[in-house]
Amino acid sequence: MEGVDYLAGERNKAGFDVNCMKIVWYGSQRDFDISDRMAKLVASDPVFSKENRTMLPRKELFKNTLKKAAYGWKRIRELNLTFEEATKFRTYIDQPAFTDLHWGMFIPAIRGQGTDEQHKKWLPLAQKMQIIGCYAQTELGHGSNVQGLETTATFDPKTDEFVIHSPTLTSSKWWPGGLGKVSTHGVVYARLLTDGQDHGVHGFIVQLRSLEDHSPLPGVTIADIGMKFGNGAYNSMDNGLLRFDHVRIPRDQMLMRVLQVSREGKCTQSDVPRQLIYGTMVYVRQTIVADASVALSRAVTIATRYSCVRRQFGSQNGGPETQVVDYKTQQNRLFPLLASAYAFRFAGQWLSWLYKDVTDKLQANDFSTLPEAHACTAGLKSLTTSATADAIEECRKLCGGHGYLCTSGLPELFAVYVPACTYEGDNVVLLLQVARFLVKTVSQLKNGNKPAGTVAYMGRAEHLMKCRSTVERAEDWLKPSSILEAFETRAFRMVVACSQNLSQFANHEEGFAELSADLAEAAVAHCQLIVVSKFIDKLKEPIPGKGIKQILEVLCQVYALSTLHKHQGDFLATASITPKQAALAFTQLRHLYSQVRPNAVALVDSFNHTDHYLGSILGRYDGNVYPKLYDAAWQDPLNDKDVPDGYKEYIRPLLKNQLHLAKL
Amino acid sequence: MEGVDYLAGERNKAGFDVNCMKIVWYGSQRDFDISDRMAKLVASDPVFSKENRTMLPRKELFKNTLKKAAYGWKRIRELNLTFEEATKFRTYIDQPAFTDLHWGMFIPAIRGQGTDEQHKKWLPLAQKMQIIGCYAQTELGHGSNVQGLETTATFDPKTDEFVIHSPTLTSSKWWPGGLGKVSTHGVVYARLLTDGQDHGVHGFIVQLRSLEDHSPLPGVTIADIGMKFGNGAYNSMDNGLLRFDHVRIPRDQMLMRVLQVSREGKCTQSDVPRQLIYGTMVYVRQTIVADASVALSRAVTIATRYSCVRRQFGSQNGGPETQVVDYKTQQNRLFPLLASAYAFRFAGQWLSWLYKDVTDKLQANDFSTLPEAHACTAGLKSLTTSATADAIEECRKLCGGHGYLCTSGLPELFAVYVPACTYEGDNVVLLLQVARFLVKTVSQLKNGNKPAGTVAYMGRAEHLMKCRSTVERAEDWLKPSSILEAFETRAFRMVVACSQNLSQFANHEEGFAELSADLAEAAVAHCQLIVVSKFIDKLKEPIPGKGIKQILEVLCQVYALSTLHKHQGDFLATASITPKQAALAFTQLRHLYSQVRPNAVALVDSFNHTDHYLGSILGRYDGNVYPKLYDAAWQDPLNDKDVPDGYKEYIRPLLKNQLHLAKL
Ligand SMILES: Cc1cc2nc3c(=O)[nH]c(=O)nc-3n(C[C@H](O)[C@H](O)[C@H](O)COP(=O)(O)OP(=O)(O)OC[C@H]3O[C@@H](n4cnc5c(N)ncnc54)[C@H](O)[C@@H]3O)c2cc1C
Ligand SMILES: Cc1cc2nc3c(=O)[nH]c(=O)nc-3n(C[C@H](O)[C@H](O)[C@H](O)COP(=O)(O)OP(=O)(O)OC[C@H]3O[C@@H](n4cnc5c(N)ncnc54)[C@H](O)[C@@H]3O)c2cc1C
Ligand SMILES: [Ca+2]
Repeated sequence: MEGVDYLAGERNKAGFDVNCMKIVWYGSQRDFDISDRMAKLVASDPVFSKENRTMLPRKELFKNTLKKAAYGWKRIRELNLTFEEATKFRTYIDQPAFTDLHWGMFIPAIRGQGTDEQHKKWLPLAQKMQIIGCYAQTELGHGSNVQGLETTATFDPKTDEFVIHSPTLTSSKWWPGGLGKVSTHGVVYARLLTDGQDHGVHGFIVQLRSLEDHSPLPGVTIADIGMKFGNGAYNSMDNGLLRFDHVRIPRDQMLMRVLQVSREGKCTQSDVPRQLIYGTMVYVRQTIVADASVALSRAVTIATRYSCVRRQFGSQNGGPETQVVDYKTQQNRLFPLLASAYAFRFAGQWLSWLYKDVTDKLQANDFSTLPEAHACTAGLKSLTTSATADAIEECRKLCGGHGYLCTSGLPELFAVYVPACTYEGDNVVLLLQVARFLVKTVSQLKNGNKPAGTVAYMGRAEHLMKCRSTVERAEDWLKPSSILEAFETRAFRMVVACSQNLSQFANHEEGFAELSADLAEAAVAHCQLIVVSKFIDKLKEPIPGKGIKQILEVLCQVYALSTLHKHQGDFLATASITPKQAALAFTQLRHLYSQVRPNAVALVDSFNHTDHYLGSILGRYDGNVYPKLYDAAWQDPLNDKDVPDGYKEYIRPLLKNQLHLAKL
Repeated sequence: MEGVDYLAGERNKAGFDVNCMKIVWYGSQRDFDISDRMAKLVASDPVFSKENRTMLPRKELFKNTLKKAAYGWKRIRELNLTFEEATKFRTYIDQPAFTDLHWGMFIPAIRGQGTDEQHKKWLPLAQKMQIIGCYAQTELGHGSNVQGLETTATFDPKTDEFVIHSPTLTSSKWWPGGLGKVSTHGVVYARLLTDGQDHGVHGFIVQLRSLEDHSPLPGVTIADIGMKFGNGAYNSMDNGLLRFDHVRIPRDQMLMRVLQVSREGKCTQSDVPRQLIYGTMVYVRQTIVADASVALSRAVTIATRYSCVRRQFGSQNGGPETQVVDYKTQQNRLFPLLASAYAFRFAGQWLSWLYKDVTDKLQANDFSTLPEAHACTAGLKSLTTSATADAIEECRKLCGGHGYLCTSGLPELFAVYVPACTYEGDNVVLLLQVARFLVKTVSQLKNGNKPAGTVAYMGRAEHLMKCRSTVERAEDWLKPSSILEAFETRAFRMVVACSQNLSQFANHEEGFAELSADLAEAAVAHCQLIVVSKFIDKLKEPIPGKGIKQILEVLCQVYALSTLHKHQGDFLATASITPKQAALAFTQLRHLYSQVRPNAVALVDSFNHTDHYLGSILGRYDGNVYPKLYDAAWQDPLNDKDVPDGYKEYIRPLLKNQLHLAKL
């Protein structure tokens, strides 16, 4: 039966053109083409096979990663891939490796914080991979509080060097990816001590290992920090620990774009604005939002296809049972996640526009939009990664028992994804930053400040405080204006309520601390509004292709109304809608599910994921789940013998009641 | 510094007697003593060490499990442990093994479904472990729908045997624990075919492996189904697959307590009521609720202790930074989970009483309370396991980056726990069963039926439909009566709303399917009410010990008000409370957190978990986190060399730009 498409029937039901939707998802024909080509290149190469990955012991997994990284680089050069193509190529290898940090953090840190001379010296070496670098910021004792890092870099004017040192156990670097076993260099963050003063935390390029034999340099202690969540997953990465015992580096290895240390050890601030750092954060977080949509799309593809294959109960007159995707509870759990994948995708596309906009403005020395851009990327990072982590696990549960098998792909996807909630800013810490910005925005309204960008709606304060939703029938919830107003009203009133409660406190900071749980909720409400409104904006653009716009409208409504239902407490507490209107929204949502249902498989096909990239038997394109599950089971090392190792020592004596004689 | 208690300061703050609370948690002095003794026995024995477990490759992990199981059995016999002690002893070994299914499912199935003769023949063999058994129900194609199983057991009157056969690929048994490599026997569920008729699914005792050399018997195909979620975790278990090719067993190996097949192949129903099966389900699910409270208590112990050790931000004048447990967002995430652990504990204790009550009534041929007991255990199983799974992951996130390390213990706890949401009834399928019962209860109100037990409140229909909460100030939410009424009103009105919507459908079943998402939400509301009301009932008992009752009252309020806040949409939509009252509840909750805070460490100490059982460096009793994290990292096999395997083949050629020469 090889080659049969068990989901063909589902595919035929679709009311839209899948090929056009692929272009929408990837952003352009060009982006689609590159992704498609790179995904297929990787998928067709046996070196990149992910089979059995979750069964490999740590050392073998790690060695396998080194092989893929080296071979990947070889192929990238043989094929003469552009930077963009190479980046995609690495993505589709889909195995965390030192290269992620080398390209994603080490090089950008030098580029962003280094001087022109430093660029000239270090970038070519890094870009040819003649050195391999990591990003060594976090320590055993400090992660979120970067300003609290303890590693010191003391300037020694006698030798024109910095002395890098780890004064305490908690100052040990801890977590940097690629550090443990591979990196030859790192951008190391340390407190600059010179001039008898502590100048705060700065980045230093430090060589860690010999380029001849790879051994750690004198005074440098390095190791891997050990196993992390899940099988396979992030264990292919050598997150490392690092200690310095008075290690000396030349003065010109401090990244000096913003602050310079002179031969005498004096500090001078350059005229480069410090805000530039925010530009980099906007960039990194924008990629995280895009990645969230991808991770979510993979989980949703698996759960959707399997929910169409899986049948349980409801057989009538001996006919086939009901596909579990037809159960409304299944739809109510799955379709909002499918809609979220699209919603986050468009939020990500908009963020990449925002990043360009911010960069342009920065170059023109216009910093006015930076705080808003920073708050909004921080918020969307937090919202989308938390939602995606939860969604992957929900997709796993949607697959019943079989979702618990590694061959479903979902356990590994979850384990490899969840740290996104923690790194690049703990999601709760980020929400509090957003809340701070929102409260400030509201407080400045009375000065007549006109808020712009994603907080522009707050300018309509008076209207938002008194408006009442006009929804009367379930269909009224289909109007973008009804949805938008409800989300704006809810978010604004929550922020205003927080502000009012804050004003009861004599000390603003104490009040902020005391009310932080409410503040975080208000921040979530604001971020959900952004996602909803960017989806609605997207639908105002011309989007070609048969049925595309229609089904995207349905998804937008599903995202909005399912979010509204899940958080209806906020909407009702702020009187943004009435209980009646809340009930109508849920009724309408149910009708929308029926419109999603025939399009479900086509909507996940539109993500264009190869079976290699999905790495899931339950999510196979052809739906040929059961025979493949059965075959895959036999690959487990335990199955190389009928009678397991340990039978003689442990099972037989037990059965024979001879344990007292056995050596245990 | 070995031996220093870094959490001593926290312990001194507690306002209650920890030793008394331990008795409350374990239910009695006797239960506490047994648990404490067994936990320490296991913890002090090096064979039961869990160190490095998450680094073991599958085969080694499995062999290690066999060793622990055999050695455990040896110790159980040497120490002459009672059944109760032995059960606890196995629990504290804390590594899933074939013994769980042998004692937990195989023996109970024979006991529950077998005749007296079958008991006499099989139970002694099983109890001495001269045979090892599994529970082979689920197939590749059928899990939730047990009636849809495809394995056949065809009676052959010529030989007085059943022929057990797997007619399709999807009829392969799939999932049974202990099946893959160890079990010699199984209770196999199959369709009984005799007399030219299909008599539905029944259990059969089938020998699977030779008792001489452990090889699978002729016609029997067995294997392990492969890796599951997480490192360590459930991979110590040999969940298996099983196929039969016309395997013959004597007639007397069908479990015939309920249905008998005669020598001629005729079926007769015994006078034993089929409802007995529900009794067993009540039993199993009651243990699952108890287990949920334990798993949750472990996660909460780790997150609470670490949140007191971890400091981040807020240093003033060079003093220590703020303990992260002092952040209100952290409290708002953590303390409701701590309260849930206690809430689920008491729900579990009550369920074990309910089970005894049901059993007594069954013996007196009184089946009247069975449907209610069944619904309520199904609902509590669903509620507590879903909440616990989510809570473990939240506890992991509460530990920031370090929670992602296996040495935090949380990844493994999550991975090993989550299938509880799926086995013994998929949680969504269970909620729909509860909903069905609730709708039925409401529909029978008009016949004057007086609902009893956990649905007794529905008897006050009139009051619940019109009552209004009298809460005016935040403190009013401390009254159990305010809480209870709000929860009853919400649950009842949600069920009534569902019933009304259902009555709009011509076909009740179609309506039920269409509205199933709403119905599931109503079921959750009902189950939360049960937990709240059992906690309140518990507090009506005399509970001795300094400060115990006071702090338990606080926890009860935290559980209730945090649940109310999280689901305030339901409370507001049903007008059970007003927006103002909802806000007051959240304010009161914040005050309650301040009362929990000084007691937090003592409240988790009261669970009495040994460091062995916790298996977490972050959760260590002494709080000595950082040095131990640092030392543990070095245990990873990757750290046995400075320069990793693969350096010569993959790293050096890359750095030296010689990949084109390398064989990859
Ligand atoms: C897989 C992975 C890869 C990583 N890679 C790198 C890398 O390459 N380089 C690198 O330098 N680092 C890396 N990190 C480290 C990462 O950046 C940190 O883990 C992250 O910054 C979170 O900090 P933390 O772990 O100290 O959490 P903590 O700050 O200790 O958080 C613990 C808890 O405290 C709460 N909390 C903390 N502060 C506040 C506050 N002010 N208000 C309220 N609540 C608060 C948090 O919400 C959380 O619940 C990595 C981490 C992981 C997990
Ligand atoms: C770790 C583990 C150990 C196990 N051990 C054993 C064992 O020892 N012996 C044994 O026999 N089995 C065992 N099982 C199997 C277990 O009992 C089944 O996985 C469980 O019954 C769920 O069934 P399923 O996997 O078929 O899920 P499915 O029923 O296929 O569920 C898939 C999805 O469909 C939904 N769904 C199904 N029916 C309905 C409906 N009517 N209405 C709405 N939604 C529906 C579910 O909610 C779920 O989202 C084990 C499973 C696991 C994961
Ligand atoms: Ca709800």
